[in-house]
Order: sequence, then structure tokens, then C-alpha cells
Amino acid sequence: MTTCSNSSSRNVAIDLGDRSYDIRIGHGLLSDPLSFESLPSSTAAMVVTNETVAPLYLDALKRSIARRHKYVHAVVLPDGEAFKTWESLNLIFDALLKHGCDRKTMLYALGGGVVGDMTGFAAACYMRGVPFVQVPTTLLAQVDSSVGGKTAINHPLGKNMIGAFYQPLRVVCDLSTLNTLPQRELSAGLAEVIKYGPIHDMAFLHWIELNMDKLLTLDADALAHAVQRSCEIKAQVVGQDEREAGLRAILNFGHTFGHAIEAGMGYGAWLHGEAVGAGMVMAAILSERLGMVDKAFVQRLRQVIDSARLPVKGAVIDANANALRYLELMRLDKKSESGDIRFVLIDGPGKAQVRAAPDDVVMSVINDCCAA
Amino acid sequence: MTTCSNSSSRNVAIDLGDRSYDIRIGHGLLSDPLSFESLPSSTAAMVVTNETVAPLYLDALKRSIARRHKYVHAVVLPDGEAFKTWESLNLIFDALLKHGCDRKTMLYALGGGVVGDMTGFAAACYMRGVPFVQVPTTLLAQVDSSVGGKTAINHPLGKNMIGAFYQPLRVVCDLSTLNTLPQRELSAGLAEVIKYGPIHDMAFLHWIELNMDKLLTLDADALAHAVQRSCEIKAQVVGQDEREAGLRAILNFGHTFGHAIEAGMGYGAWLHGEAVGAGMVMAAILSERLGMVDKAFVQRLRQVIDSARLPVKGAVIDANANALRYLELMRLDKKSESGDIRFVLIDGPGKAQVRAAPDDVVMSVINDCCAA
Repeated sequence: MTTCSNSSSRNVAIDLGDRSYDIRIGHGLLSDPLSFESLPSSTAAMVVTNETVAPLYLDALKRSIARRHKYVHAVVLPDGEAFKTWESLNLIFDALLKHGCDRKTMLYALGGGVVGDMTGFAAACYMRGVPFVQVPTTLLAQVDSSVGGKTAINHPLGKNMIGAFYQPLRVVCDLSTLNTLPQRELSAGLAEVIKYGPIHDMAFLHWIELNMDKLLTLDADALAHAVQRSCEIKAQVVGQDEREAGLRAILNFGHTFGHAIEAGMGYGAWLHGEAVGAGMVMAAILSERLGMVDKAFVQRLRQVIDSARLPVKGAVIDANANALRYLELMRLDKKSESGDIRFVLIDGPGKAQVRAAPDDVVMSVINDCCAA
Repeated sequence: MTTCSNSSSRNVAIDLGDRSYDIRIGHGLLSDPLSFESLPSSTAAMVVTNETVAPLYLDALKRSIARRHKYVHAVVLPDGEAFKTWESLNLIFDALLKHGCDRKTMLYALGGGVVGDMTGFAAACYMRGVPFVQVPTTLLAQVDSSVGGKTAINHPLGKNMIGAFYQPLRVVCDLSTLNTLPQRELSAGLAEVIKYGPIHDMAFLHWIELNMDKLLTLDADALAHAVQRSCEIKAQVVGQDEREAGLRAILNFGHTFGHAIEAGMGYGAWLHGEAVGAGMVMAAILSERLGMVDKAFVQRLRQVIDSARLPVKGAVIDANANALRYLELMRLDKKSESGDIRFVLIDGPGKAQVRAAPDDVVMSVINDCCAA
């Protein structure tokens, strides 16, 4: 664990009126009290983390915020998407109430996307809203789930079905935490980095292609640029459409197919980023079959996803009626309207569009793209 | 059940910027499709109600909104504060997901405060927010809980601890529904009507004193005025402080003691309004012992609460250490800060103030005000 402080952090501003906040990106930030300067101090704080992250970073974070709060409590959740449930959320509420935490208590989310989503939702609901700070420790959380205020838990019938739009007061992305991230999770995070290229910025996709080896070996500058550029693009999109009335949905490229894989295989069997990796290939092929992009684009995207060591084929989730099962699961997607599945498709390189697609074309894509 | 339509409804506007909405007050409104005019229509609607209200009004409401939605589903919850839990909330989510309800699905809360609070919270969280309409069928819900956007469920360690600020698109107060309301619940609703006098409008308190008999016998004009004036005062306070940064807390007059009674006796043993009735007397006596109002004011308030057939003494919730148990429960109140209980006290007739009070004075009030 890096304990040196590093004053050369990069900042990305999220502009949402009175809910605006900064993302600070750099190495060693978690261990540096300066990363938390100018946030409101309060009597109590509650750090929410999980069994994997707690032994690595909980003490360091507690030390960094010790002077800001009279009491720093912690609740350690089980690790994994399978625990993104009401039961885990209730462990946070139990801890807050047991310690008599009031409306000014600051919550800190220390962990990956699951911890961030649950802590944010707990902050949104506890006493109808307390402040919180995101301290994401996975690449996926740093480039995606900690930014933009989407919080949620899963329901047995659908992912992220119960949640709130609720913004943190700050996001502190300590890139040093990626040193302890398993390779599989690093790749999963790269799926969300890659995503920003085809939907918004082909120059960024080109940079990713050139720098994939550096990213996979945790080169400091490459990581910092990838996280910063991802957050900038997300900030730009979210700033225009905080509550996903329209544009923001493009950030879900690859997620419609991906969520079906996650739900169909059982939460946790595939990592979210892995499902998004395969889902992006499927969505690109669907775009191609609808005449929106050419085969060369699909091949290029498949290649970069493969180079990130991510799956490029979907899972067989039902041996007898795979395509129908995908359709059934995708109809539960939050973007669906009146039973019509709405896909994020690529409408020419660097440009995304949300639209429906004929069932037979979707089923042909599923049949051609899934491997046992 | 009144089925005639009545175009002479009174409207109260709640001014909250892009979350503004109207409260419509009148007899027969629930059975009149015009009550729901100009709301967005959607493919699906979900009426949330309870076992007591469903046989009385569910069919009528379904008929009134039938032309606005292709499918009108319903979920019928068990009745009572004891069921204001995550488990009941999940019945709403289960029903929404089972029917494939999307982000545009309209929720209708048909019932009292418990149904309204749970439906509003479900609407706030389902897919991170769907629209909802309040159709309150108890006096308490019509004058208080359906107005102002506070939604919540209870936690075993505290009332309304998990919730959200989330505004309905409209409130339709059908005064005819009060004809089927048990007398005990009518009285409970009157507690929240009376409340608006001492905190804001002594002329209204005077009007209530003169019209109590009419209110208890459901005189149409008296009821309409009481509901309208209560909603006006609440609208004025909430319009200045939607998220309870300060002023709004005065609406909790009587609630700090009251919540301790409800939690201490077990949710449902005392009706919320009954606990607020006794709680207002206790808060008035505390105000008097701190030199803020005189004995005559306390006596006047006790008299009007008594005339509404409400308790004017608190419950003994612990035979051995009653005052300490109250303090313990009140420290969990959402208004508490750093362990200090904050009371809504009367700072001269018609004017409220939120402040702490010495434990020994609070305990003397509890000891003098509770009856087995």
C-alpha cells in the first residue's frame, strides 16, 4: 500500500448545480488527509467497505479522516455482486442506528462498484439523506460506478431495480489501490474505459488501443489518463442529463445484453465488466446488422475488448431456448418502454443512439454470439 | 360511498419549482375522472392500497383512471403501522417487476399515511424514480402525510428512519372517504389539524375550537375548510424548506414525544395522531417550564386536544424507568444532533422554535404527564 502523499492529483469537475462535486485522481490519495480537505466535518462518520478491501485500506482511510470526525465507525460487508441486496443494505442501516448516527453523519464508500452503489443508496435513504464520499478502489468504480450519482441494490428479478439518483460530495480515486486489484477485475474495469470510445470519442479508443499493454501493467501515467478521460466523458454526459431522461442512457452501451448475462448466470458468476465486454460486441454486431456501422468497426471493437482479456462472446444462459431467455431478461431492463427493449447502438463510430430493434434480428445476434 | 362527481373542489398549490403540484380537496373526487385530468398517462399503473381500503374504494379509483392507462394493476398490503416495513415495501416492488412495469408506470397511493409513505418511497426507489399520485383516505393523510414529499418506512430501531424526499404529481383528497373512517382515526387526524394552530396560526386554532363538534360529525363545509387551511399552512412551510434544513421541523410539534410513545408501545398500539395528541401536551408543558408560554396556553391546548377525543397524557412505556426510556428513544429522533434531543417548542402562541432542553426538565415533564 502506498502511503506517501501526492499533491499532483488531477481534478475532474462534475457540474450539476448545487449538487456539483470534484473527482480527484492520483496515486496515494487515500492516505492523504488533504484529499478530504474542505468537506464538511461532522461528529460521526461511517466507512462502508467489504471483507476484501478492509484489511488493505480501512486503517489508512480512517487515519486520513480521523481529524474530521469525533467518531469513525466502520461496517464491513461481504464481498461481491451477490450481496448487493436489501439484506446487506440493512447491515449499514443497523450500524448507523446502533451507533446513534444523526443526519449530519458522513458516509464513506471504500471499495468497488457494489460498495459504492450500496453506500450511496444508504446515504440517500438514511433519515431521508445524509452526505457521502466515494473512495473507489477498483478501476471499474473509478471510471464508472462512482461517478454520476446512480445508486442501487439488485432485486431477484432485475439488476439495480431499487435505487436513487444521489450525488456524492466528492470522489477520491486513489490509483495506488489498483496495485492490489486482481487481473480479472482490472480487465473488467477496462471494459467501461473502452466503452467511452465507440459512444463518444474515437480518438480515445485509438489511444486505448495504443496503450493497452501499459494499462494492463498499471503504468502510472497511462492509468491516470484513462481514468481522467473516462470521468471527463461521463461528466459531460451526466451534466447534460442527470436523471437519464435521454442522452445519459448511451452510457449503458453493452449493458442491455450484459445485464441479461449477469442475471441469467446468477449475479457474481460473470463480473459486470466481463458481461459488458461481451455485451458491447453483441450490441456492435446488432448495430452492424441494422446497417448502422460496418464490419470493420465491429472487428476493431472486438479486437480491443479481446486485448483487454475480456470475453467477446456472450454466455449460453439457457441450453434449450437461449435467445428467448435473453429477450425475457432484457425486457426487464430499465430502458424498456411498454415491453419494447431499447438498445444502445452505435450509429457510426463515436456516436450512440438508443432505439428498439426487431426481435428476429436480436435473436440472430444472440444465436451467433454466444458460446458455452 | 359517494359516486357523484363534484366540480367544486378547492385547490391548494404546493410551490416547489419543477416539483410543484396541486392538492385537490372536495367530496366525491376519487370517483371522478376529472380529478386526474392533465396528469401524464402511461401504459401501466399500479394502485397500492390495503386490506381495509381496497373493498371500499379500489374499484371506484380503478374506474376513474381506467382511460388513462392500458393496464391498471393493484397491490393490497396488510393494514397498519406495524406493516410499514421493508417486507411490505418489497411486496410493491415484487408486483411492479412481476407485471413488467417500466419507468413511466404511475403509482397511486390509495389509503392512509402508511400506504402513502410506503407508496411514495417505492415510487422514489423503483428504477430510481417513477411518478406517483396520492389519494389519501384518512383525515391524517389528507392534512399531513400526503403533503410535502416525506416518504419512509420504519426500522425496528426507529420510525421513518429509511426514506426519501419525493414529491407526488398530485394529491386528490376525497372528503367523502372520511364517512367510512373509524371515529378513533378521525380523532387521530384532528391531532395534526390542531397542530397547525399553536405553531403558526392561532386564528385557525380558535376556528377549530368553535367547530370541533362539526368536525367530529363530518360537516362537509367544516371538513373542507379544516383540510384546506391545514394544507395551506403546510404548503407555506414546506415551500420555504423542502428538505427540512430548518423551519420545516416545526411541523413535528408533538412528534418527538409522540414517536417515543409509538416506538415504546410497539408500532400500532397507539395511532400516530393519538401519540401526537399527547406529545403536543407534553411539548407545551415543556415550553411552559422553560418560560416560553404561560399555563393558560397549555390549558387551552389540552382542552382542544381533549375535545377531539384524543389522549392528553403520555403512555407509561417502562414501569421501572419511564423517563429514561423516553430519553433513550427520543435520542434516536431524526432531529437529534450529536446526541442532543431537539424539541419543537412553542415560543409564544402561534410561533414554534426547535431547540434542546435540559434533561432534568424533560424528565420532570415525562414524570408528570404519563398515565398507565
